[in-house]
Amino acid sequence: MSKAVTLQKTVSLLEDADRLVIVTHVNPDGDAIGSALALAEALRVKGKMVIVTIDDEISSFYKFMPGIDTFVRFSADEQVEADLLVVMDASSLDRIGKVVNCVRAPILNIDHHVSNTGYADYLYLDVMACATGEIVYELLRELSVTISKDMAFCLYVAIVTDCGYFKYSNTTPKCLNYAAELLSIGVQPDVVSDFLEMKSRNDVNLLSKVLETLDFHHNGRIASIMISLENYDADIATDSFIHYPRYIEGVEVAVMFKAVDAEVTRVSMRSRLLDVSRVALSYGGGGHKRAAGFTLQAELAVAKEQTLKRLTEEMDLL
Amino acid sequence: MSKAVTLQKTVSLLEDADRLVIVTHVNPDGDAIGSALALAEALRVKGKMVIVTIDDEISSFYKFMPGIDTFVRFSADEQVEADLLVVMDASSLDRIGKVVNCVRAPILNIDHHVSNTGYADYLYLDVMACATGEIVYELLRELSVTISKDMAFCLYVAIVTDCGYFKYSNTTPKCLNYAAELLSIGVQPDVVSDFLEMKSRNDVNLLSKVLETLDFHHNGRIASIMISLENYDADIATDSFIHYPRYIEGVEVAVMFKAVDAEVTRVSMRSRLLDVSRVALSYGGGGHKRAAGFTLQAELAVAKEQTLKRLTEEMDLL
Repeated sequence: MSKAVTLQKTVSLLEDADRLVIVTHVNPDGDAIGSALALAEALRVKGKMVIVTIDDEISSFYKFMPGIDTFVRFSADEQVEADLLVVMDASSLDRIGKVVNCVRAPILNIDHHVSNTGYADYLYLDVMACATGEIVYELLRELSVTISKDMAFCLYVAIVTDCGYFKYSNTTPKCLNYAAELLSIGVQPDVVSDFLEMKSRNDVNLLSKVLETLDFHHNGRIASIMISLENYDADIATDSFIHYPRYIEGVEVAVMFKAVDAEVTRVSMRSRLLDVSRVALSYGGGGHKRAAGFTLQAELAVAKEQTLKRLTEEMDLL
Repeated sequence: MSKAVTLQKTVSLLEDADRLVIVTHVNPDGDAIGSALALAEALRVKGKMVIVTIDDEISSFYKFMPGIDTFVRFSADEQVEADLLVVMDASSLDRIGKVVNCVRAPILNIDHHVSNTGYADYLYLDVMACATGEIVYELLRELSVTISKDMAFCLYVAIVTDCGYFKYSNTTPKCLNYAAELLSIGVQPDVVSDFLEMKSRNDVNLLSKVLETLDFHHNGRIASIMISLENYDADIATDSFIHYPRYIEGVEVAVMFKAVDAEVTRVSMRSRLLDVSRVALSYGGGGHKRAAGFTLQAELAVAKEQTLKRLTEEMDLL
């Protein structure tokens, strides 16, 4: 298990290191990227040698993030000398890919996920933080760094990403107050939202096709959408599509079926009351009570039928 | 012209009145409804007789607002005795319909629109406030009323409505700090967003159909969508549909054409750089630089052709 450390001790660990590698999780989102870039810039301002890395491609969607070009990707046999490996926003070690093999240094993990597995040497975990970016903001204040507009921008993106633009239940007074302070530093809220709302033509075309598949079951209490194999495009972020069935009047559970292969279907669920994480776990998946998912070795229509049958049974038990 | 008053004087006017009619604008949104309900409840707590009214139907969408059933609608010849008529969030007198004829009392206007026409006896105008709800929050603190959870909920809805969930340029540190304080009073951010995100099946079905009409012009710098007369439904709020073309990469101007009659087309525009209010004004419409609209006496296809030609010319002048 990790040694749990305080914010102050986390600051000491960062200050005591001269050469740091900052890594965040694969399939990075705005919180992962924003937190890593803001901390990296702050530590460079403090005169430190900082490498910032992800063992994954970064979607071109994030090209607007200041400093995005500073991310490097290690080759499999690369060995990097460092005093500290800082792992951001990753709840388990497999989330940082092969970086753990490239850097021989004590690991400091900065995270806010309740599911953190305690893999690091030092762990600063704040499960009340809406985003890792919220923690980094506190770290930057303790590090006595003047928070630049770029750092503030990165942290604002981090925070709004993980609290769903202040719509999720993890939105706290502190998170809103920090967002206010970041605006005071110079973040322009409409500039951030313009970037984050940006879609490609393909995104909107796919949404249009997927909404046509909207279907209701169990007296309208379950709503589903489907992405057929023909329409499947790994480059299109489809996570937000499930919001459409989720927020239809009378719907208690929304499901999205995505054919990623002829015999492989990914199932995402969102609910109001039903604990969908139990359903997901029983199929080898995971998630939270109100948002969970799993993968079925079945073609789309079979996966749909099987999942809807199961969800109907679960809802009848409510 | 109105007599401009301070926040303190506004409080005095409210405190000095025993019988108040609070009215907000027709076609009310979350800011209009939330501001009026929060102020009405606060004044009732202070022991005052308060009538809250709108000269319009209120969409059933807002049935979740605490106190929504307290709204009354006056008949044309009704005469209501009051000491003060408080007009909320309405920038011109025609926005309150016939209520002005029903209430013989001095008018206090509380507003945040820069376009305010100065029609009231007393005007408290704060154009820096992101929402009238932000002003009402300040009033309630000055009125020394304990802000209840219901009042806080109404004000939170008001604020998030008018700053586009903190995405618009009118989002300020103050607006975020007030939102934080409202959460501290007991507003649950996810409960509010669950209500505000709610759609009907018809809403989502129409969106699906409208996205199919997505069309690009002028090398992808203009994107348009259309709502045909066949698909037109006055009960479906379509304001948000234009966000889809607006946020597509490379699009500088988005246009939505809505056939409201065989020979009448409503045109809405959103832009990044082009001043679309000038275009709207030239066709007898109005709006802001980046969001404007007008109505053409023309059928859908003709209106589309004419508008796109004009927008292309305007963009070539940029």
